[in-house]
Amino acid sequence: MSTGVRRRMGVDERRQQLIGVALDLFSRRSPDEVSIDEIATAAGISRPLVYHYFPGKLSLYEAALKRASQDLASRFAEPHEGPLGARLLRVMRRYFDFVDEHGPGFSALMRGGPAVGSSATNALIDSVRQAAYDQMLSHLGVAAAPARLELVVRSWISLAESTALLWLDGRRIPRAELELQLVHDFAALAAVSAAHDEDMAALLKTMVKGEQADGPFAELVGRLISLGS
Amino acid sequence: MSTGVRRRMGVDERRQQLIGVALDLFSRRSPDEVSIDEIATAAGISRPLVYHYFPGKLSLYEAALKRASQDLASRFAEPHEGPLGARLLRVMRRYFDFVDEHGPGFSALMRGGPAVGSSATNALIDSVRQAAYDQMLSHLGVAAAPARLELVVRSWISLAESTALLWLDGRRIPRAELELQLVHDFAALAAVSAAHDEDMAALLKTMVKGEQADGPFAELVGRLISLGS
Repeated sequence: MSTGVRRRMGVDERRQQLIGVALDLFSRRSPDEVSIDEIATAAGISRPLVYHYFPGKLSLYEAALKRASQDLASRFAEPHEGPLGARLLRVMRRYFDFVDEHGPGFSALMRGGPAVGSSATNALIDSVRQAAYDQMLSHLGVAAAPARLELVVRSWISLAESTALLWLDGRRIPRAELELQLVHDFAALAAVSAAHDEDMAALLKTMVKGEQADGPFAELVGRLISLGS
Repeated sequence: MSTGVRRRMGVDERRQQLIGVALDLFSRRSPDEVSIDEIATAAGISRPLVYHYFPGKLSLYEAALKRASQDLASRFAEPHEGPLGARLLRVMRRYFDFVDEHGPGFSALMRGGPAVGSSATNALIDSVRQAAYDQMLSHLGVAAAPARLELVVRSWISLAESTALLWLDGRRIPRAELELQLVHDFAALAAVSAAHDEDMAALLKTMVKGEQADGPFAELVGRLISLGS
């Protein structure tokens, strides 16, 4: 292969390019199936040169996963403006955008991918969950969550993960429906917890206070009422 | 160590004894921290003799996990009698019994234990989830679940897992409350799905038809109504 016409990249620039190429391949197929040879070809460099920048596939996978984690965590950021249900729905849309873009890699990772059980991989998954949790609390206006609120938020985050994984397995339900359903699921889980605990009941009241008549929380109530009739 | 007074065990009997001893140790502490030496001591045999029956710690761990999986799956079995909510509550009690008995091992496994990512371990976890799923469908009286019902049941199973894991982390909420809450969570997630889909609405109606006025589903409705007043 001639690389004569190509501009030479600096070390960091080359590393970033390789991470981008690898992330793209790891996202579109199960990372198990992606070889270093393929990454080298896609990056337009030789296999030994890949090893010059990364000691092996695992380290390149972890670097790609780190970039993906930062990307996903950044999508949770949402202005503190307007009703809570509408904010959450926008975040769910960006979450499903990410899942859609990284489908096979996301499935492989969350179902037990090549580097699962490695402490670096687990730490990255946990950091994304923590970012989602912190964002939720900040939108709920709570600095330190009591145990029952922590349970609702963290278990809802795991519900969002399993819902996305089940969606990827055949895409049999339109994603827009699931995005709205997850907002409704959060309201429903919070309502169940509020039915068990006074502090959660008080929090739920402040949550729905700013809701609009055409927002997703009001929509859920309307749908549930029509269900009973 | 003298083993002279001890009756000699057959091969299969010795294997079963070692699995039992190992499962007990793997349940009470993170499996990472349990050594073959400790298992040998607890079983009253020498370290080389353990290796005579199992090639290494991973194979003993997988055998212990297999026994625990069968134990857990057997706890989902529930007679098809009486209201659905009460049945589900009894299963949740037995589920939390299991989680209670195997706490540290359960946490380590589900958070990424020593053998996570091994295909044998993942297959065992999946087999327990599938057993839970099959039991739920049989109690709902559904042979082949439409996509939305499958989503509700499978995502609720993952919610039960994350709820149990969060409970183990400090046990800050009484487990009896969480057992009932998970029954309520199932009803709430089914209701949200029913609010989005006519077939789910029809199924929900048959689900609650046999419920008693003092059962968990009725209790949830009562609690939610008092919340709104």
